[in-house]
Amino acid sequence: MQQQLIFTNQVGETLDQLVTDINPSSVFVLVDPNTAQFVLPVLQADSKVIAAETSSVIQIPAGDIHKDLDTLRTIWQHLSDHQASRSALLINIGGGVITDMGGFAASTFKRGIHTINIPTSLLGAVDAAVGGKTAINFNGIKNQIGTFAPADAVIISSIFFPTLTIQETLSGYGEMIKHALLSSEQTLNDLLNYSIKNPPSDPDRLLALVKESVSVKENIVAQDPTEQNLRRSLNLGHTVGHAFEALALKRHSPIPHGYAVVWGIIVECILSNMLEGFNSEILYRLATYAKDEYGIFDITCDDYPDLLQFMSQDKKNILPDLINFTLLRAPGDIVLDVTPSHDNITAALDIYRDIMGI
Amino acid sequence: MQQQLIFTNQVGETLDQLVTDINPSSVFVLVDPNTAQFVLPVLQADSKVIAAETSSVIQIPAGDIHKDLDTLRTIWQHLSDHQASRSALLINIGGGVITDMGGFAASTFKRGIHTINIPTSLLGAVDAAVGGKTAINFNGIKNQIGTFAPADAVIISSIFFPTLTIQETLSGYGEMIKHALLSSEQTLNDLLNYSIKNPPSDPDRLLALVKESVSVKENIVAQDPTEQNLRRSLNLGHTVGHAFEALALKRHSPIPHGYAVVWGIIVECILSNMLEGFNSEILYRLATYAKDEYGIFDITCDDYPDLLQFMSQDKKNILPDLINFTLLRAPGDIVLDVTPSHDNITAALDIYRDIMGI
Repeated sequence: MQQQLIFTNQVGETLDQLVTDINPSSVFVLVDPNTAQFVLPVLQADSKVIAAETSSVIQIPAGDIHKDLDTLRTIWQHLSDHQASRSALLINIGGGVITDMGGFAASTFKRGIHTINIPTSLLGAVDAAVGGKTAINFNGIKNQIGTFAPADAVIISSIFFPTLTIQETLSGYGEMIKHALLSSEQTLNDLLNYSIKNPPSDPDRLLALVKESVSVKENIVAQDPTEQNLRRSLNLGHTVGHAFEALALKRHSPIPHGYAVVWGIIVECILSNMLEGFNSEILYRLATYAKDEYGIFDITCDDYPDLLQFMSQDKKNILPDLINFTLLRAPGDIVLDVTPSHDNITAALDIYRDIMGI
Repeated sequence: MQQQLIFTNQVGETLDQLVTDINPSSVFVLVDPNTAQFVLPVLQADSKVIAAETSSVIQIPAGDIHKDLDTLRTIWQHLSDHQASRSALLINIGGGVITDMGGFAASTFKRGIHTINIPTSLLGAVDAAVGGKTAINFNGIKNQIGTFAPADAVIISSIFFPTLTIQETLSGYGEMIKHALLSSEQTLNDLLNYSIKNPPSDPDRLLALVKESVSVKENIVAQDPTEQNLRRSLNLGHTVGHAFEALALKRHSPIPHGYAVVWGIIVECILSNMLEGFNSEILYRLATYAKDEYGIFDITCDDYPDLLQFMSQDKKNILPDLINFTLLRAPGDIVLDVTPSHDNITAALDIYRDIMGI
């Protein structure tokens, strides 16, 4: 099952058309306090369906700590108390917590009702391509309980991204930079010519970039649905990125995952330059962009043993002690399963510090 | 997705072979106090997998009132605490409560682990053909939350039926009589020549009857998966049966659903005889069997207005005031959507009282 992806900044109109096509018995809208305050009023002004007195709003607390069984029960209870039938529709409006948990509630209520997702975060929008995973956290483990249940449709719009923190937006853009590197130099240039920290006023440009990025991911997943080879390239930046995250945690000053991936991408592009001939001019442009938009993750050579240790423990490694990387000959020219020596990795970290001006 | 149905009374051996094929990372067994006491020891003696110290038993309280979110949480918690991975296996051993709830837990834990169902009730075994529906009750509504998730395999055996009450067994046999009437006179004769209340010692005969019955249902469902026409014939006996149940409830002395269906079948076969030429000799044999095995549901002509009222409210009716029946020209020769007059129905109830000796 494939979910319909719709890229538009005319959200209200698009939503009304979709709901007309689905023709649900009743309409429910799932929001958190953030989307209730900043997104719902916009949609209520634009969409007949959302504005209708017959549509019923379910508000749940914001944040991953509430992505749990208690909140799930609240959603089920609301649907049940309002006599939602099998042909009811749940519209999930929010970040990953809302779409994951709303998706799970909808896929299990009466064994599945209709759903439309409206991701309001850039990360959620970029992730929407690989659809159908729903979940809640359980017993302290992320996404421990869930289903595979594609939504009827996902409406992807850039107009709501400013309602979320710049940190969340930068994290999503990090994913897009990774996709661009796996696609082509042109796609990468498009991203590096756009400042996500200080975006121009035109949201349609960003929407076009998101659409391009989603199609890169769709292509990769379509070519390798069971993650035998190419799909593992989506781990680009993560070998070093996870090590940076672990080091930051050890220092008691955690960094956002998306930032760690961007800094990790820089190191892995340096390795790509050293071992696979990746163009150094592109590398420098990328590093400059990262520095300007994301700042710097500060390391010294005293951190190298820790970083190598963290990389050795990476669960992507196939043989013990051989650290597994996805590298690039050029943007879009992917080399899987490269295992550089520790000396190579150390040299790359030296160059990272040099380029970033540490 | 189709679940594998295996009819066998060598349960332990079959189970061990299935588990070898699935090759799970760990094995969990879901039981209630009843199956823990009467079924688990038999399997522990017969099956290496169940006897293994590595297999982990989850025991939950018996009964439909415990088919709820709290019990579900207990199952998830056990799987989580015992580090069940995506390739773990849950073996559900019990009646519908165990297989429905265990199936739901397994289909949602890490978005789906392996499952094998071993229905221990006759009704569960007969229902196993239409696989993949899992559920819990929620907010006082039966099966309000669930998934479509076929098990890897269902092992159907007759050796455990005596561990359940005779009432449950008779209810399951009522379903089988219905299937036989939808199939052929031969299938019906096979059932009427077997006393389910006082079964012979050979469980293999009953297993063969169950297998035949399941294949009838499979055929009907395969011919009409979306319940447009033929599948509605599975409502045979239910128009009058539901009315009998409602009347019994009004009298504050409820009757088991499966019994009500059998008595309903008698009345509907009388109507079939009156309106569609159904053979009266078969009708009498059927009525005698029902009387001997199920006893009699007692009605007087004073109950007719209530019964007609209950039938008029049946949600299967297409037009108001026209009571919709599935009737038979002969066993296996089905006539859908017959709407007899109230006089016809009253006459049939008169004949029912006469045949049953009321």
